[in-house]
Amino acid sequence: MTPNVVEMRLQLSRAEQLANSLLSQRGEASGAAIARELHGVLHVFAAEDRLNFQRFLATDFAPDATALRAAAEAYLSHPSADAAASLAQAADPPRQELLRRMNMAPGGTGALVAMRKEIAGRLRDEPALRLLDSDLKHLFSSWFNRGFLELRRIDWQSPAAVLEKLIAYEAVHEINGWDDLRRRLAPDRRCFAFFHPALPDDPLIFVEVALVQGLAGAVQPLLVQDGDDDAARERVTRADTAIFYSISNCQDGLRGISFGNFLIKQVVEELKSELPHLTRFSTLSPVPGFRRWLAKRAAATNDPAIAALARTETGAGWIHTAKTDASLKRMILRVCATYLTRHASAEDRADPVARFHLGNGARLERINWLGNTAPRGIQESFGIMVNYLYDVETIESNHEAFVNDGTVMRSAEVDALLSAEPVPVPNPGAA
Amino acid sequence: MTPNVVEMRLQLSRAEQLANSLLSQRGEASGAAIARELHGVLHVFAAEDRLNFQRFLATDFAPDATALRAAAEAYLSHPSADAAASLAQAADPPRQELLRRMNMAPGGTGALVAMRKEIAGRLRDEPALRLLDSDLKHLFSSWFNRGFLELRRIDWQSPAAVLEKLIAYEAVHEINGWDDLRRRLAPDRRCFAFFHPALPDDPLIFVEVALVQGLAGAVQPLLVQDGDDDAARERVTRADTAIFYSISNCQDGLRGISFGNFLIKQVVEELKSELPHLTRFSTLSPVPGFRRWLAKRAAATNDPAIAALARTETGAGWIHTAKTDASLKRMILRVCATYLTRHASAEDRADPVARFHLGNGARLERINWLGNTAPRGIQESFGIMVNYLYDVETIESNHEAFVNDGTVMRSAEVDALLSAEPVPVPNPGAA
Amino acid sequence: MTPNVVEMRLQLSRAEQLANSLLSQRGEASGAAIARELHGVLHVFAAEDRLNFQRFLATDFAPDATALRAAAEAYLSHPSADAAASLAQAADPPRQELLRRMNMAPGGTGALVAMRKEIAGRLRDEPALRLLDSDLKHLFSSWFNRGFLELRRIDWQSPAAVLEKLIAYEAVHEINGWDDLRRRLAPDRRCFAFFHPALPDDPLIFVEVALVQGLAGAVQPLLVQDGDDDAARERVTRADTAIFYSISNCQDGLRGISFGNFLIKQVVEELKSELPHLTRFSTLSPVPGFRRWLAKRAAATNDPAIAALARTETGAGWIHTAKTDASLKRMILRVCATYLTRHASAEDRADPVARFHLGNGARLERINWLGNTAPRGIQESFGIMVNYLYDVETIESNHEAFVNDGTVMRSAEVDALLSAEPVPVPNPGAA
Amino acid sequence: MTPNVVEMRLQLSRAEQLANSLLSQRGEASGAAIARELHGVLHVFAAEDRLNFQRFLATDFAPDATALRAAAEAYLSHPSADAAASLAQAADPPRQELLRRMNMAPGGTGALVAMRKEIAGRLRDEPALRLLDSDLKHLFSSWFNRGFLELRRIDWQSPAAVLEKLIAYEAVHEINGWDDLRRRLAPDRRCFAFFHPALPDDPLIFVEVALVQGLAGAVQPLLVQDGDDDAARERVTRADTAIFYSISNCQDGLRGISFGNFLIKQVVEELKSELPHLTRFSTLSPVPGFRRWLAKRAAATNDPAIAALARTETGAGWIHTAKTDASLKRMILRVCATYLTRHASAEDRADPVARFHLGNGARLERINWLGNTAPRGIQESFGIMVNYLYDVETIESNHEAFVNDGTVMRSAEVDALLSAEPVPVPNPGAA
Repeated sequence: MTPNVVEMRLQLSRAEQLANSLLSQRGEASGAAIARELHGVLHVFAAEDRLNFQRFLATDFAPDATALRAAAEAYLSHPSADAAASLAQAADPPRQELLRRMNMAPGGTGALVAMRKEIAGRLRDEPALRLLDSDLKHLFSSWFNRGFLELRRIDWQSPAAVLEKLIAYEAVHEINGWDDLRRRLAPDRRCFAFFHPALPDDPLIFVEVALVQGLAGAVQPLLVQDGDDDAARERVTRADTAIFYSISNCQDGLRGISFGNFLIKQVVEELKSELPHLTRFSTLSPVPGFRRWLAKRAAATNDPAIAALARTETGAGWIHTAKTDASLKRMILRVCATYLTRHASAEDRADPVARFHLGNGARLERINWLGNTAPRGIQESFGIMVNYLYDVETIESNHEAFVNDGTVMRSAEVDALLSAEPVPVPNPGAA
Repeated sequence: MTPNVVEMRLQLSRAEQLANSLLSQRGEASGAAIARELHGVLHVFAAEDRLNFQRFLATDFAPDATALRAAAEAYLSHPSADAAASLAQAADPPRQELLRRMNMAPGGTGALVAMRKEIAGRLRDEPALRLLDSDLKHLFSSWFNRGFLELRRIDWQSPAAVLEKLIAYEAVHEINGWDDLRRRLAPDRRCFAFFHPALPDDPLIFVEVALVQGLAGAVQPLLVQDGDDDAARERVTRADTAIFYSISNCQDGLRGISFGNFLIKQVVEELKSELPHLTRFSTLSPVPGFRRWLAKRAAATNDPAIAALARTETGAGWIHTAKTDASLKRMILRVCATYLTRHASAEDRADPVARFHLGNGARLERINWLGNTAPRGIQESFGIMVNYLYDVETIESNHEAFVNDGTVMRSAEVDALLSAEPVPVPNPGAA
Repeated sequence: MTPNVVEMRLQLSRAEQLANSLLSQRGEASGAAIARELHGVLHVFAAEDRLNFQRFLATDFAPDATALRAAAEAYLSHPSADAAASLAQAADPPRQELLRRMNMAPGGTGALVAMRKEIAGRLRDEPALRLLDSDLKHLFSSWFNRGFLELRRIDWQSPAAVLEKLIAYEAVHEINGWDDLRRRLAPDRRCFAFFHPALPDDPLIFVEVALVQGLAGAVQPLLVQDGDDDAARERVTRADTAIFYSISNCQDGLRGISFGNFLIKQVVEELKSELPHLTRFSTLSPVPGFRRWLAKRAAATNDPAIAALARTETGAGWIHTAKTDASLKRMILRVCATYLTRHASAEDRADPVARFHLGNGARLERINWLGNTAPRGIQESFGIMVNYLYDVETIESNHEAFVNDGTVMRSAEVDALLSAEPVPVPNPGAA
Repeated sequence: MTPNVVEMRLQLSRAEQLANSLLSQRGEASGAAIARELHGVLHVFAAEDRLNFQRFLATDFAPDATALRAAAEAYLSHPSADAAASLAQAADPPRQELLRRMNMAPGGTGALVAMRKEIAGRLRDEPALRLLDSDLKHLFSSWFNRGFLELRRIDWQSPAAVLEKLIAYEAVHEINGWDDLRRRLAPDRRCFAFFHPALPDDPLIFVEVALVQGLAGAVQPLLVQDGDDDAARERVTRADTAIFYSISNCQDGLRGISFGNFLIKQVVEELKSELPHLTRFSTLSPVPGFRRWLAKRAAATNDPAIAALARTETGAGWIHTAKTDASLKRMILRVCATYLTRHASAEDRADPVARFHLGNGARLERINWLGNTAPRGIQESFGIMVNYLYDVETIESNHEAFVNDGTVMRSAEVDALLSAEPVPVPNPGAA
């Protein structure tokens, strides 16, 4: 089954020839057929040959230098709108047209997304692939436009071919096989994903939602089995809050193209329409950068409390201390509130999860002690989990405040944490 | 319901403001919502206000002149691949990004396609719209890529919302209402269309096929009712030939983006798989340019026969002559064969329908006397209809011969028409 | 195509042979294949041969006489539950089993429903078919159980194959072709039907609903075109009332099996869920028996006013009088209220439409003058149309009152019509 | 959550009251609502209360004794067809009508099927339930008529809610979780099931098929993973044989209603149409009764070879002997051929699996040594597996031969096993 070197070289040369054909006049008449053949050849390539083909794509297929030079000179001498348009056309690399034609074959979109995923792992060693990567990203931005995405609810009625992707892609709270998955899709849960029509079995991003009473502050209770389906259905009738407890991007080949913002907002609309008795829509989110930031703070200050906190050993026994030591809890919550509400800067970046939700217009609603007692949660943020509240009425103004001057809109409860008593953390601005 | 001038001006200014927002940072957070609002405003515009908004789109949103100038200069001084990529990026007009964001709203794609359709009728008077038109075309080429199109069979089970589009869009042989449509969708007919997922009820292009015994040479028998559904089903079992007797593009907003070639070839595959006993796939096509060409020939030559032929009055009574005058038939068929097989040139263009099918790799199979006795058929081509044969084995070589040197591959039967006796038509090359 | 007599006799005998096979042991192994063949033979039968085959079914396939006699005697001597069950089994005619096996072929259910429809027209002349008719009805009652019916919304997205059935079956307010149908399915209309899985394109019964503001009292305004789809969508947002203005049974072969009661109640649920702002669910119904009843009343009384009313000529000009003569209006409405609210009896039956809705638990809500100005409406009921209100809270009690002692629950408005002034109509009880 | 005794008694009485209502006139108007309420009450019953309710159904709702007596007497005195029909009507138990009305609620069919499943386990102790069981069976025979069943292919695109049923219901070769299931649904496998529209997620019966080259004689190779999906797809192109290696009935509540015969024959049609290159359709089936029969034979004869064979210990080491001892193999195959081909009788029944396939018209094609090396296979039949061949051409005649006189049609290969040398097994007729 493994062809030898000569055969592979022949196949690589065949692939290159097909790529050239695809861009030629012949490609106009028989493009779909040539593209299909090309993908057939690539399908059996070993990793190394795929790399060689990617190099070929990245280095050939540049714009015609003579025409581009002429267009650039024409624009510089008469910088009209028409000249700009001609220049744009001359600068448009044939590589993009080639990639568009490769997309014409059945499965073409999936193959191109897979190609960009593979390139991602190679960019460091193969900077020449960056042009190919950027052309793919440009095309994907256009192809995976929000207007072409389909929101689908995922539940136990969904095809197994889709469900197994959830197990594979869940990035926040791991799904341990099909029984665990079933809990995530119980009657008091909702799961929604964006799909693209050309990748019908492959979610682009999905969100998991729990329907609960009150604002859930801890994730473990949401993940355990809790009675049978009848009981779960009954809980839905009493739920007033939708908790978005996990959002996972699925396609490495689409990195840099953002879907999460759209997804959350549309799911809020869907849930409101299905369950009018829901009054609150909130995340339950990790604070992945908290202790990393704390370590930097400790290095930059000589506050002994901060230093002590940064040095805290959170091994097996710590959870017991955390449950009983009220002043420790109070102090850490306060420091975390400071971390999450300070004005971020280029040197002192906002927490990535906070930045995402605050940038979407959510409000920092509550900071929960021991919201995630899994080792990773303890290690990243002393087990703290945060609720970001999506309130349609204030989304725009929250967003404006955050992007214009970094102001973090928050609840009175968060304010109370901050103001209770001065927290001995140096002003990040002073760092 | 018709707002007055002040109101409309306010709305135009609101639309412009929304378009600007959509491109701003705010657009990143709430793009879908802004786009939806923008389309809502545009939806109630009168034609004149739409024009004003289109002018606004066409003239604003050009690339940043300073950045473009810098990128052009940088490329000219160091014309590397990276510099070309940077230049392409600087030349990419923000207008395209704006249009992509307008696409994010529900119905956005349809609204943009409708906009380009409207622009088409205005380009002559408003040349400034050309940049907008060309940006839309660029986006549509990418969005309506073959890989994103869905082939669907259309039959009496299809939604009325789709079927009414067939009645509206059929461009070759008019469909007179729902009863006539039903005949086109009888059990011995097939109809296939390409759809785009964002326009689920709107075919992009469709083809009508008749399943018959032998190579059908006349279109009228294909259009009349012929027994009931049982009889039609029975005919399918005996059919050996699929006749593609009508292909209609549906979306004026997508002009310049070609689907027909893909459609025919994929429908051939579908039919082969559904009905393995079909052995021949052929069009029954008009020759729209024949008499126009003949008139030009007559002017350029002094052959009295040609001149007489060009002057022929094909009024009400002519059909009777045509049916009885064997030498007239022989002569016209011969001239038509010459018309269809000569090497075309820029001054003496190939028949548009011939160019399409020959360019796709079809073969000129048969020239049929009185294949279309409708007035338009008589008027355009003395009622001649032509079969172009799609034979998978020879498609590539036919195509190569045609695009490389204009050679028209044809059957022996067409050759016989040509060689029987010299036709007194001047060599087009001599014209 | 028409086989001669000998051929037909052969085919009839073949059909009878197949029917016998179907019931034999061979039928158990190859039942679906035999049933398919049998339907194939019957499909090409002329009407007369179908009649012969129906006679054959009706007269053969009776229960085994010896076994039935024995079971009857056994039951009479020891009337236990087991003996009754054995007797039921012995009395179960093999004809029903044969019909069940005929149902196994594709299209079998449709063919059996069509057979019963044909039998209906023949029962008068062929009383022997009554046993076959009653066996079919028995089976259909079981097969078309509410639990197996699917409620589907019908709109412009529905298949043409379904929509053409609406045009054909609408029994109350005729649909004049596809354009008229489109109005019935506009955005401010709803149409729902019950389907059976074995007859996927064939509605069993459908109801047409208008979404309006206030209680609509006249049908013509509901049937005319009224602005475009945008306007219709806008009206929906303001609607508070759903008017059920037409209910049509579609399948003559299912007569005697009632679906209307279930349909109305489930559509009320559907509409409430889709449009929570609807607060009223009412019919707009004809009074088909009013003038027939009036004529009988006139014959049985010597009240000159009634006699005069019964003799009224309602020709072309009458509508003008009706619009202007307030006392005529008052009098007729009062008499109609009496007609609709009196306690019906076997000799003096309730209006059939009233009986249906009142029996379902609806309330007589309003009697509308000139609610239907079409000739048939004038001729049947002086153009009067009636609203029956479906109010979930009172359905059970209304129903009980009506079926227990014939009491017609009604609004105060109807009561006012009755009590304003004595109506000179003889008490039906005295008739 | 567990109601106490008084509450349960109240609920039982409520259920009985609802059942009575359902059969009353009130049930005609509000049947669906009452049925829904009744199922709601039953849903929370404990097993004992369900039993009490089942007893109530089984003992009440008998036909009216007076009417039945009268009808029986009328028939006996004048045994006409009409009198027989009247008697059938009088004997029809109201219980069946009640069950039909219980079916009107959403989920009603499923609840009734579940009730019969529960009854099955109680019949021995509660013979009074037999009438209820038999009425349910009568209804199910009518409702689950072949004409109402839908054949669906099941694959990895099927909903998880359906797939988990396969894991639960597979009765022949156990499926060990989702990974194992995936193998059963690989590209070179097919799985088809019958569904009823009222039980959309619940297969009634399903069959698993392997597409292979040549007649597969051993089941273990079919169950193991064998390369990736690409390899499996490639194998399909070379397959000439479809092996039906597992058929499982899913619904205990439908026992006695046979679907397998229909399923196999329709799946043969489906496969022929999808994969025209398949030329052979065969089962790979167990011989569950072989060793049981052998033990009886041994007791009835004094043939020492048979006695020795019957006493064979087939523990852990036996498989090694079986693989190496050619004369043992020869002898057992011969005895098994005798077992499978002898004329069965009431005292000496045919193997149940053989009876099923031979009764369907299949042919005994091959007897495979060590076709199933799982402990159960060894224990039941020395690991022998059998191919029954379904050949459309001979199905009818095979069936006739088998049902008329018990002749087992078989291949020459089986005949060879039989005739090679006399097998010392006593003639079953002599037993």
